[in-house]
Amino acid sequence: MANIGFIGLGIMGMPMAGHLIAAGHQLFVSSRSARAAEAVALGATACDGNAAIARAADIIITMVPDTPEVEQVLFGADGVAEGLSPGKLVIDMSSISPLATKDFAARIAALGADYVDAPVSGGEVGAKAATLTIMAGGGDAAFARALPLFEAMGKNITHVGGSGAGQTAKVANQIIVALNIAAVGEALLFAAKAGADPAKVREALLGGFASSRVLEVHGERMLKRSFTPGFRIDLHHKDLALALSGANALGLPLPQTAFCQQLLNSARGNGEGGLDHSAIVRQLERLAGHSLGDE
Amino acid sequence: MANIGFIGLGIMGMPMAGHLIAAGHQLFVSSRSARAAEAVALGATACDGNAAIARAADIIITMVPDTPEVEQVLFGADGVAEGLSPGKLVIDMSSISPLATKDFAARIAALGADYVDAPVSGGEVGAKAATLTIMAGGGDAAFARALPLFEAMGKNITHVGGSGAGQTAKVANQIIVALNIAAVGEALLFAAKAGADPAKVREALLGGFASSRVLEVHGERMLKRSFTPGFRIDLHHKDLALALSGANALGLPLPQTAFCQQLLNSARGNGEGGLDHSAIVRQLERLAGHSLGDE
Repeated sequence: MANIGFIGLGIMGMPMAGHLIAAGHQLFVSSRSARAAEAVALGATACDGNAAIARAADIIITMVPDTPEVEQVLFGADGVAEGLSPGKLVIDMSSISPLATKDFAARIAALGADYVDAPVSGGEVGAKAATLTIMAGGGDAAFARALPLFEAMGKNITHVGGSGAGQTAKVANQIIVALNIAAVGEALLFAAKAGADPAKVREALLGGFASSRVLEVHGERMLKRSFTPGFRIDLHHKDLALALSGANALGLPLPQTAFCQQLLNSARGNGEGGLDHSAIVRQLERLAGHSLGDE
Repeated sequence: MANIGFIGLGIMGMPMAGHLIAAGHQLFVSSRSARAAEAVALGATACDGNAAIARAADIIITMVPDTPEVEQVLFGADGVAEGLSPGKLVIDMSSISPLATKDFAARIAALGADYVDAPVSGGEVGAKAATLTIMAGGGDAAFARALPLFEAMGKNITHVGGSGAGQTAKVANQIIVALNIAAVGEALLFAAKAGADPAKVREALLGGFASSRVLEVHGERMLKRSFTPGFRIDLHHKDLALALSGANALGLPLPQTAFCQQLLNSARGNGEGGLDHSAIVRQLERLAGHSLGDE
């Protein structure tokens, strides 16, 4: 059993921390966190800030919204780096820039500590059920040290490669999910506008090469007009922004991802950033002047 | 057991006809077909042309390349319509225009006969294994009459709706498959260009929301550089042309489908129309100046 610092007790982080406590680990959280008391009630120990967490724990997990927050938590005032000593391990499970991640890993390595990037997919449901998909990047020994913790929080765990490879896989995941949602949206709109029942069409397609998790899950949400997240447009917008800023830096054209991010911009412009990402279809419906259903 | 005319003994049609003969039906084929002798050897009876087939059979199945060929076979010189009489049933299993299909069905109905559009997906492999996905449009009684024949040729059989609904579902299917292939292409190229192993990334993604038949099958083809069809670029190009001409007629914008058809144009311009549709990735690689692998 390990001494683990956990920074980022949000919608995802709190149930993940809970699974680690339930697996018998000693958790350290920041007393400055809004939900510190909740974690302490589960068995965690409160520390006075993030540097103190890094002093108390051998492994420090971060689960925060975006790249700037990870940088702040690791390297800002009262950051993890201040309390870190050689031999410790930092695991960032946030979904952030793959390029920044390589830099963060190098800066942590310069302090004598290891770094694993390990973003997740599966959302709040997966976090609560401990069925998250975890995509990890880092050295073999560091991954092996992190693996028992991952197994307490997730199901499909892959060591993708070196530093940044986990974040790269997560970006690739978000590209595919967004484009698959938009593809299902165009196809069902074509079916509806051509006079067929889009629900029947979806059913006919589930058995063949068009089948996907997105056709199952998000296709159904589009037809039932059930846009309660799930995974919010705002977050997917952030993830495709990561894809496009990475693509810009790499000189890589991602024309379809760029277009799909404009659909997410449309959603935000129409005040729908808080809806589930299956609401991408609503932007295609705006273009079409035709909806798959009433709400 | 039924008397069935079968017109279109191609790569798909010949094994489909074979399954109908094996199921005990009496088949009539045209002696003018290049592969008539092959069908006769399986037990079919040769007739002198398509009008003669329509006189001999109660149910006439067509399985030809595109909309003009269906029109020619049904309504051209020596066409099915010449030999048709009230109470017979025409089943078009080609993949053609949903809008033209509604017209063909109305013209067949004017002759007192029924019409079912029933395009398939699953390719040559599915035709040979009798595991085709069949999407049918037409009246309830006509569908019920066709169903035992479908069951001899396929596995996932859906009565989607009235005339044209089968073709509409097939177009929707082809939109999703093409866009999912292009999505996997962009995602794996991002991964490779960012320095990760795209094969490991694909593996990590198969367990989560990005998973699809396309990620499984076509993703693997992209990585193994295995572009032997499968399903040819030329045919998928035709299918997206059906989607876009339908969309034009309906006043429906399909921006992503339009872009993806340009990728198929790129493939044809580069002499790759005969490759498997997973070679869409090769056009993204041209844009990127970066390939997922050597060939």
